[in-house]
Amino acid sequence: MKFTAGQIAELLNGKVEGNKDAIVTNVSKIEDGKPDTLTFLANPKYTQYIYTTQADVVIVDHAFTPEHPINATLIRVSNAYEALAKLMEMYEQSQPKKNGIEQPSFVDKTATLGDFVYVGAFAYVGENVKIGNNTQIYPQVFLGDNVTVGDNTIIYPGVKIYKHCKIGNNCILHAGAVIGSDGFGFAPDENNNFKKIAQIGNVVIEDHVEIGANTTVDRATMGSTLIKRGVKLDNLIQIAHNVEVGENTVMAAQSGIAGSTKIGKNCMLGGQCAIAGHLVIGDQTKVGAQAGIIKSTKDNGPALLGSPAFDISKFNRCYVIFKRLPELSAQLDSINKEIKNLKQ
Amino acid sequence: MKFTAGQIAELLNGKVEGNKDAIVTNVSKIEDGKPDTLTFLANPKYTQYIYTTQADVVIVDHAFTPEHPINATLIRVSNAYEALAKLMEMYEQSQPKKNGIEQPSFVDKTATLGDFVYVGAFAYVGENVKIGNNTQIYPQVFLGDNVTVGDNTIIYPGVKIYKHCKIGNNCILHAGAVIGSDGFGFAPDENNNFKKIAQIGNVVIEDHVEIGANTTVDRATMGSTLIKRGVKLDNLIQIAHNVEVGENTVMAAQSGIAGSTKIGKNCMLGGQCAIAGHLVIGDQTKVGAQAGIIKSTKDNGPALLGSPAFDISKFNRCYVIFKRLPELSAQLDSINKEIKNLKQ
Amino acid sequence: MKFTAGQIAELLNGKVEGNKDAIVTNVSKIEDGKPDTLTFLANPKYTQYIYTTQADVVIVDHAFTPEHPINATLIRVSNAYEALAKLMEMYEQSQPKKNGIEQPSFVDKTATLGDFVYVGAFAYVGENVKIGNNTQIYPQVFLGDNVTVGDNTIIYPGVKIYKHCKIGNNCILHAGAVIGSDGFGFAPDENNNFKKIAQIGNVVIEDHVEIGANTTVDRATMGSTLIKRGVKLDNLIQIAHNVEVGENTVMAAQSGIAGSTKIGKNCMLGGQCAIAGHLVIGDQTKVGAQAGIIKSTKDNGPALLGSPAFDISKFNRCYVIFKRLPELSAQLDSINKEIKNLKQ
Repeated sequence: MKFTAGQIAELLNGKVEGNKDAIVTNVSKIEDGKPDTLTFLANPKYTQYIYTTQADVVIVDHAFTPEHPINATLIRVSNAYEALAKLMEMYEQSQPKKNGIEQPSFVDKTATLGDFVYVGAFAYVGENVKIGNNTQIYPQVFLGDNVTVGDNTIIYPGVKIYKHCKIGNNCILHAGAVIGSDGFGFAPDENNNFKKIAQIGNVVIEDHVEIGANTTVDRATMGSTLIKRGVKLDNLIQIAHNVEVGENTVMAAQSGIAGSTKIGKNCMLGGQCAIAGHLVIGDQTKVGAQAGIIKSTKDNGPALLGSPAFDISKFNRCYVIFKRLPELSAQLDSINKEIKNLKQ
Repeated sequence: MKFTAGQIAELLNGKVEGNKDAIVTNVSKIEDGKPDTLTFLANPKYTQYIYTTQADVVIVDHAFTPEHPINATLIRVSNAYEALAKLMEMYEQSQPKKNGIEQPSFVDKTATLGDFVYVGAFAYVGENVKIGNNTQIYPQVFLGDNVTVGDNTIIYPGVKIYKHCKIGNNCILHAGAVIGSDGFGFAPDENNNFKKIAQIGNVVIEDHVEIGANTTVDRATMGSTLIKRGVKLDNLIQIAHNVEVGENTVMAAQSGIAGSTKIGKNCMLGGQCAIAGHLVIGDQTKVGAQAGIIKSTKDNGPALLGSPAFDISKFNRCYVIFKRLPELSAQLDSINKEIKNLKQ
Repeated sequence: MKFTAGQIAELLNGKVEGNKDAIVTNVSKIEDGKPDTLTFLANPKYTQYIYTTQADVVIVDHAFTPEHPINATLIRVSNAYEALAKLMEMYEQSQPKKNGIEQPSFVDKTATLGDFVYVGAFAYVGENVKIGNNTQIYPQVFLGDNVTVGDNTIIYPGVKIYKHCKIGNNCILHAGAVIGSDGFGFAPDENNNFKKIAQIGNVVIEDHVEIGANTTVDRATMGSTLIKRGVKLDNLIQIAHNVEVGENTVMAAQSGIAGSTKIGKNCMLGGQCAIAGHLVIGDQTKVGAQAGIIKSTKDNGPALLGSPAFDISKFNRCYVIFKRLPELSAQLDSINKEIKNLKQ
């Protein structure tokens, strides 16, 4: 990238203070701003760095009043953080986009591809697969028979999607994600051998969903494992068979949801949390990192922490005392002595 | 699929009540049964749904006595759940099976392939690899030099098996599983740099084992990491170097076993549990979700919970008090006051 | 492999006691030593096995004094464990190394490859990629546009490296690792829909780093996620965007680091531990398995355990009392009764 302060100000509808011809070729954080870069100041905690940063251009709020001289050129906007995010998005979208069918790839003759589709080398597109318009299938992706993928979706390298699964529009699936592997279903026989229960359902991923790298979503035993519109899953998450995740719910990395649990919409799950099977988790539920949920929850309930988890503010009060347990135990001992004395 | 109630009853040795020509084209759960589908009633909790389900055919136990009129056609069998599982398995097995060597793939000229083998496009079959009869190697699988794979085994897309590892008969390895990566072995030198210990062993996976998506099993430093007959591992599990997992042990997703630990047979490990290294875990051990095991256990010991873990029923009794700790602490304070008063 | 005891003694500068022509073809552990193998005795706990092992050759320390007759040939060295590690390394290095460009692979015409590079079949090497000398790119690896990889680095099958990321010299990346996937960054809008924040930074991995199987390292929002020289990451680890991991820090499997946290050098993190975002973790910090760190720590601080974590020795003292909580609660009840009696 290569822009002048003046060009950036125009894109952002901002106002230049300083050299409108200052050139930036990259973006940096204000605390380690490097020459020829653009940075921004949004969080007041970082104000100190604006006086010393070597970045050439800094986006600031209209309201910002410097208390010392500043070397950098400023671009004043109504919201510095949003302006930068918008700029980064414009930059990202200006990047060249891959197009066409790279060779060698495997596209079954019964597959249907939309307009402006990219299929990377070594990608496998099975029988009756349908891919929508403007969708990008990166190298080494596997789309099993009868998979459908919507429009404007990006499937990064090495994603594996088993047969019959459905991926919506405007989704992003990161490298190594596995969609539609068999649910973990076995029935023990009289000799303690486990017999596999066939998993004949699929996975349905609605629109605007993002799935992190190496995350796994198992197919349903029957019916569908369902990831609803707007859900965002981080990396290395496990979603078991027949789970439903409600609209706009977000889960941090390494969390795991056991089979048949239904999670509401607008929930926020912390990293490494676990939710047991066959539960119903209400809308707007918040789960702390490493928490273990073993009971269903109501809509708009309190945030949860602990394993097993309960109300986070109660948990924190308990944990404060937990850290004083040796002292409490010593108090008990001395009380027992006192009472013995009193009784004598 | 497309079956009549009569055909299904015949397959299951069941008895039709209603329209033996009712046609079903899919399977659904009774609580969201859709037209043209087959469902089942096994768990009495779901009995209410049989009166309203739109599924056309419901498999029920011979003993089931309806209390209201039912629209659906019933098929009576001796065990509804088992009948459905059997049907799903028959359906699964009736699906067309891939066969032959898809192109482009890489099969080293020294490799030996059994009869009716499938090797998918972009699969890599290294030097001296041996693949048994009826085994399916999906696209983008990697089989390193000297790997052997038994008969009737399915290796899903993108599985990576490092050199010298051995996979048994009737195994299923799900997409993204990695078998035989180096164990995590390093020795610090005088400058705190870590020097790699060569990992020259392998992984041996016996018969009837299922390995979940993106699960990792490290090769032994020397000798073999061993996954015994009938073991079932869920997704995203870590098995470190030189671990042994006993026959018919099952582990839920995201659990992790540290190096050189030996796990007995018929154990059940909950999700996200962790077992420290160099332990011996007895047969039939049950470990709760998120538990952390730091001591060896005996055969048939109590189930374990907590981190560090101990007897689950003791843990639960302790945890009940943990949740009352602020109250206990307040009691202590008031007791201290009482004693002060009594002493005066 | 096939060596005589005499040849091995020469390699290790050791002294043969017994048959210098004894032949070994593999390595085994002393407790399950098999004929025709070489083993070693370093840990005194295993001394008993030297009298019964069927291994033909055993490496022992000069100081070892047998108390019973030994069948095996001994090789005496100054440090048996180091001698074996050295031997295993020599063995590993004697193995044939792949070389050249296997077909079919995809190497963009703008890519630059060093001398003695291996590029496996179905590997994808994007635009302007630079690969150093003696580096091995296994089959099915993806190197996005503008990726650079240093000298003497091994990238195992199926690793995916997104565009613009940089990998140093003498690194090892295990199968299924994903480097440079998007950081988990979203901003909620007024309708609770999450809007993606473009992630335009990259990942920089310095020299002598090892990354485990299916581990994920996200690219920075802007700037770089940084894994410094000598870091060793085990399998299934999550490193979020803008994290920095200091020199020679090691992390066990399934641990996770949230966004923008800076970890010092020479730290040791246990399996399944979690570190929250935006923290600074001091040098030499030790974190126990399954611990959850929610506060920054100083250099050389105490080891940490618990979730939330604190000083491990304090935690252990608290946990001892936690396990006695039902007893403490009963004591409280009886004290309350005593006091009631005393007051009367």
